[in-house]
Amino acid sequence: MGATVAIAGASGYAGGELLRLLLAHPELGVGTVTAHSKAGDRLIAHHPQLIELADRTLEPTTAEALAGHDVVILALPHGTSAQVAAQLPDDVLVLDCGADHRLTDAAAWQRFYGTEHAGSWPYGLPELVRKDGGKQRDALPGAKRIAVPGCNVTAVTLALAPGLAAGVVAPDDIVAVLACGTSGAGKSLKPHLLASEIMGAASPYAVGGVHRHIPEIQQNLQLASGGAPVTLSFTPTLVPMSRGILATVTAKLSGDAGSVRAAWADAYADEPFVHLLPEGQWPTTAAVLGANTAHVQVTVDEAAGRVVAIAAIDNLAKGTAGAAIQSANLALGLPETLGLPTTGVAP
Amino acid sequence: MGATVAIAGASGYAGGELLRLLLAHPELGVGTVTAHSKAGDRLIAHHPQLIELADRTLEPTTAEALAGHDVVILALPHGTSAQVAAQLPDDVLVLDCGADHRLTDAAAWQRFYGTEHAGSWPYGLPELVRKDGGKQRDALPGAKRIAVPGCNVTAVTLALAPGLAAGVVAPDDIVAVLACGTSGAGKSLKPHLLASEIMGAASPYAVGGVHRHIPEIQQNLQLASGGAPVTLSFTPTLVPMSRGILATVTAKLSGDAGSVRAAWADAYADEPFVHLLPEGQWPTTAAVLGANTAHVQVTVDEAAGRVVAIAAIDNLAKGTAGAAIQSANLALGLPETLGLPTTGVAP
Amino acid sequence: MGATVAIAGASGYAGGELLRLLLAHPELGVGTVTAHSKAGDRLIAHHPQLIELADRTLEPTTAEALAGHDVVILALPHGTSAQVAAQLPDDVLVLDCGADHRLTDAAAWQRFYGTEHAGSWPYGLPELVRKDGGKQRDALPGAKRIAVPGCNVTAVTLALAPGLAAGVVAPDDIVAVLACGTSGAGKSLKPHLLASEIMGAASPYAVGGVHRHIPEIQQNLQLASGGAPVTLSFTPTLVPMSRGILATVTAKLSGDAGSVRAAWADAYADEPFVHLLPEGQWPTTAAVLGANTAHVQVTVDEAAGRVVAIAAIDNLAKGTAGAAIQSANLALGLPETLGLPTTGVAP
Amino acid sequence: MGATVAIAGASGYAGGELLRLLLAHPELGVGTVTAHSKAGDRLIAHHPQLIELADRTLEPTTAEALAGHDVVILALPHGTSAQVAAQLPDDVLVLDCGADHRLTDAAAWQRFYGTEHAGSWPYGLPELVRKDGGKQRDALPGAKRIAVPGCNVTAVTLALAPGLAAGVVAPDDIVAVLACGTSGAGKSLKPHLLASEIMGAASPYAVGGVHRHIPEIQQNLQLASGGAPVTLSFTPTLVPMSRGILATVTAKLSGDAGSVRAAWADAYADEPFVHLLPEGQWPTTAAVLGANTAHVQVTVDEAAGRVVAIAAIDNLAKGTAGAAIQSANLALGLPETLGLPTTGVAP
Repeated sequence: MGATVAIAGASGYAGGELLRLLLAHPELGVGTVTAHSKAGDRLIAHHPQLIELADRTLEPTTAEALAGHDVVILALPHGTSAQVAAQLPDDVLVLDCGADHRLTDAAAWQRFYGTEHAGSWPYGLPELVRKDGGKQRDALPGAKRIAVPGCNVTAVTLALAPGLAAGVVAPDDIVAVLACGTSGAGKSLKPHLLASEIMGAASPYAVGGVHRHIPEIQQNLQLASGGAPVTLSFTPTLVPMSRGILATVTAKLSGDAGSVRAAWADAYADEPFVHLLPEGQWPTTAAVLGANTAHVQVTVDEAAGRVVAIAAIDNLAKGTAGAAIQSANLALGLPETLGLPTTGVAP
Repeated sequence: MGATVAIAGASGYAGGELLRLLLAHPELGVGTVTAHSKAGDRLIAHHPQLIELADRTLEPTTAEALAGHDVVILALPHGTSAQVAAQLPDDVLVLDCGADHRLTDAAAWQRFYGTEHAGSWPYGLPELVRKDGGKQRDALPGAKRIAVPGCNVTAVTLALAPGLAAGVVAPDDIVAVLACGTSGAGKSLKPHLLASEIMGAASPYAVGGVHRHIPEIQQNLQLASGGAPVTLSFTPTLVPMSRGILATVTAKLSGDAGSVRAAWADAYADEPFVHLLPEGQWPTTAAVLGANTAHVQVTVDEAAGRVVAIAAIDNLAKGTAGAAIQSANLALGLPETLGLPTTGVAP
Repeated sequence: MGATVAIAGASGYAGGELLRLLLAHPELGVGTVTAHSKAGDRLIAHHPQLIELADRTLEPTTAEALAGHDVVILALPHGTSAQVAAQLPDDVLVLDCGADHRLTDAAAWQRFYGTEHAGSWPYGLPELVRKDGGKQRDALPGAKRIAVPGCNVTAVTLALAPGLAAGVVAPDDIVAVLACGTSGAGKSLKPHLLASEIMGAASPYAVGGVHRHIPEIQQNLQLASGGAPVTLSFTPTLVPMSRGILATVTAKLSGDAGSVRAAWADAYADEPFVHLLPEGQWPTTAAVLGANTAHVQVTVDEAAGRVVAIAAIDNLAKGTAGAAIQSANLALGLPETLGLPTTGVAP
Repeated sequence: MGATVAIAGASGYAGGELLRLLLAHPELGVGTVTAHSKAGDRLIAHHPQLIELADRTLEPTTAEALAGHDVVILALPHGTSAQVAAQLPDDVLVLDCGADHRLTDAAAWQRFYGTEHAGSWPYGLPELVRKDGGKQRDALPGAKRIAVPGCNVTAVTLALAPGLAAGVVAPDDIVAVLACGTSGAGKSLKPHLLASEIMGAASPYAVGGVHRHIPEIQQNLQLASGGAPVTLSFTPTLVPMSRGILATVTAKLSGDAGSVRAAWADAYADEPFVHLLPEGQWPTTAAVLGANTAHVQVTVDEAAGRVVAIAAIDNLAKGTAGAAIQSANLALGLPETLGLPTTGVAP
């Protein structure tokens, strides 16, 4: 066991998933686990699945508690993670699962979050393709600070970026509608997240351009398109499942319909975690449950003049905790795939 | 009790919902119930909720079995309903819940169904607004043949038609993505409809312009827009719920953003079954479960240049069986709302 | 419209269900709606399904606000309802959906609730059979105070009481295990009721003889058995559905196995809301969703020496709100079935 | 990679789960995959989660196709597995996930299955405790034929066996009620397994002593109790989840209430896959999803004179595929826990 990892915010869903994955990782060990209001509780009271950590207690989230580890992963509310991160030593690898360090544009941060911008860190989506043929993976080896992408953002980006990079879809009128599992909203005690409200119901939220993931998606897709501004209509909907995001993303066809599939096939041919499915087979979130895997499919609707690209991920795995560990592997010089499950728990 | 209603295809989900609603209708009584492969079975074996009809047996679907009723409602696979309808007397009110008589364009029928067009009947969506300010309701009093709309079609049409009729959205680049309950797919024994496959999963189907509801939506929206051609990208997704459709429909803003809400408010101000929700409150399928009600909300995303309109219906109620009875009420000269529930069974 | 009904505690699930049913009741109208912490909110913000009451605001729960109605229904936490009830005039019909007035045994109340006993009211389960052949229905006409049964209690009682009354099962070693929908736990913001925790999970609660519904079940079954003491092992489990209770109840066979079915058939032969299903057909909660209906089935397991009786109800309908209105109908001299749905919203 | 494993019946749910687990196993590799009616299909068409096996095709289930492997695992319908097994060489390790070789009592087999008994194999439930203090684990090293337990059987057995072995509960009046996920019923196309029928519904099946798992449970519990005959009332219920079994098992207290917990604690103290939870924490199926883990809790209801023991497992993992691999590890002399996940995918 090479390195130890401290988890800040370990009582939440992202924290639990990080611990699940770390328990199976051959080179990363579980270090201190911290929480805010739940400090002092036994970890297993919040995560009954973590039976191997039944003797662990949640410590308060402080720089002292997090000290002495090779890696610190922050699974904290936005705003909080920047404060904690600022107190950690420069030579520790810090990964922030919150939003604080994702955006490069301070004005966009200010517009969507209304607080001061904490600055941007290398972005932990290795498979993000750039117009120039490179990928975001290049930025991660040796990094000491990494911003883990938002889960909705990962789904939309992986669905559409290859087409923008290849120039076969236009960046100026993208429409994304997502079916999202409830764990993406976390464990906060809000009435609309009660089981009685969710089961049997589909409902939208943050409609009309107000969702905070929008500037992050635009930032990624602009990178893919080589700088062209990205216009995006984005609507997430809650559906009755705990995990999973199915992102249906359409953009105007701007090239040869016959070149569309090749753009996606080329982009993801060698990726261990992102797969273009065989023709005619469409993604389902069940197939990626618990796995650090994205399934993608694409087709052209010639009558509508649009390409439809669909991605399925597990919001807690490839959408958060798996992405963090994948990036940590890269930063630490470990094999990128080490310790990460690729097969979904289906059915 | 004024009239009796025979149901052809009573073993399926639409048939069961028709019977549930008819049992509570003060002027329409349940007549003969028929089926194809299930003929001879007790009705309650297929619909345990219909305890009041526990002594009924399913008869074979023949013109003879359906004779002698004031109203016949066909809940049959497409292709079959036209054959049965052709054998029924002209003076009986016949409502077809299948697709056979919905499309006015024989070429569109041929393109999507590949069989000969059976002709078109008056279309049973009373709340469909036309450019000229009228509504589809006008076509129904006294009608003897009525084509009941498709469930996905109803959701998309009710979501967007007011904006097209008022000219505040453009008809040329509409994108609709739907979260659909499984009962819309009927009781057919297909592996992807097994509970183990559906629970915990969101998955798309009929992606890329191939879904048979597309020409019907275009027909409706073209009526709303006053004849302008309609371009539509349409993607339904299955989500883990038995009933319900949540349609997220976006179209390019083509007028004054400040006029958008009024277009919807005016269109539905006096409607008993279609409601524009209070500002800020978004539809959820749970709120219309079992009710002949559509909930609609709309907003403008100025940054994206798009209007987002969302509708929630119960696919079996307002989407099929409720629509049939609402149209029957109109055709028979009964109060339009007679016997139809308006309050959803939530949570 | 004869009488008006005030609802105290209208923001919760029982309150919403009472309003849904009252909106469809031909003789009872919706009066004042009150709440505690939600007073001042618009009703529709908590119950989007109650679109017909979109202009209603929740008033504070006070005796003044509840005055001037023919009927007051209390959907309040235990302890609170007795306090409010004490302030209401004697000539108003008051129905308490809480536990405060259900138990006749003050010691049992003290043991399970730890507070002073408020006294007992006539018990609103009309179909409860007594050893002497009578039913609880007899106690309700003209009553001015009625205790509405607990939902789990209703399911277990209706499942087993006929066998005890007929003497074909023994009262001394009854085992009941229930699969319960989450709405029975109300809208309280508890972590274990979050959708993410419930979906995909079955979990027990209040195991080992500590659930507060136990003395109420014993009271009912003792009435059925003619006074013999009742020993009961009772385990409820939460399963991923919003509504519904499936109670599996077994008791030792104490008579002739051949007489078992007749005991249930006789008890429920003329009941409008409780049905012994045809042989071989077992209850499912889906078939009673939204209906004031209980489905029951029974069989003998000779090898185990036990009778197995199973009942399905909707906890909010027959389990709470429907039961209240059924009892109110009886108390007011209206037809018992008036305004109450009997067909479940399935699938 | 030491050994290769062929899977017969790889298109079903048990087959898919076996392959998921084998892909993560360091010493067992995936060999031939076979099917009956699905032979010739691509494996990924049936198991989209098995993206790493996307190039595999299902071969027909024949002895020839299964030859040349170190291990063969049969995931076939009962009756079929015995036929296939009979054609396999003696020196190959064969594990049967079906029922054919579980029962030692030919008469019990005949009574519940109605066909000729194929004989019994060493039984693959290592944690089954015997009255004499030993465990079933002892029978497995070096075995060449292993009968994998039924999933419901595993849950009930692990819940109650420690109490019988310790003599603190009586074997003569056991009652087990289970909440079961749908994948236990397999992929067979039956109407009651359609998603529309299952979601929102709890329903019992095989009620009244007719379920085929009953003699297998009795056989196990009799072993635990040291030969005393076991009387069992067993009722499984289907609830809306894909995976998971929650078994609520009660038996009469026959010893000192104060000794109860110790019986379970002692039995499972050193088990890697079966855990008695901390006092007050009850099992939930979510916590064992995808894991080869059983969570157990027990309490005494003194008023009812019964012990209540509850176990949660994943029917496909610890209930079937995980159990097979755990037993294979033991038979092959590998570490028992090799390649088996212990942390559930929660929430």
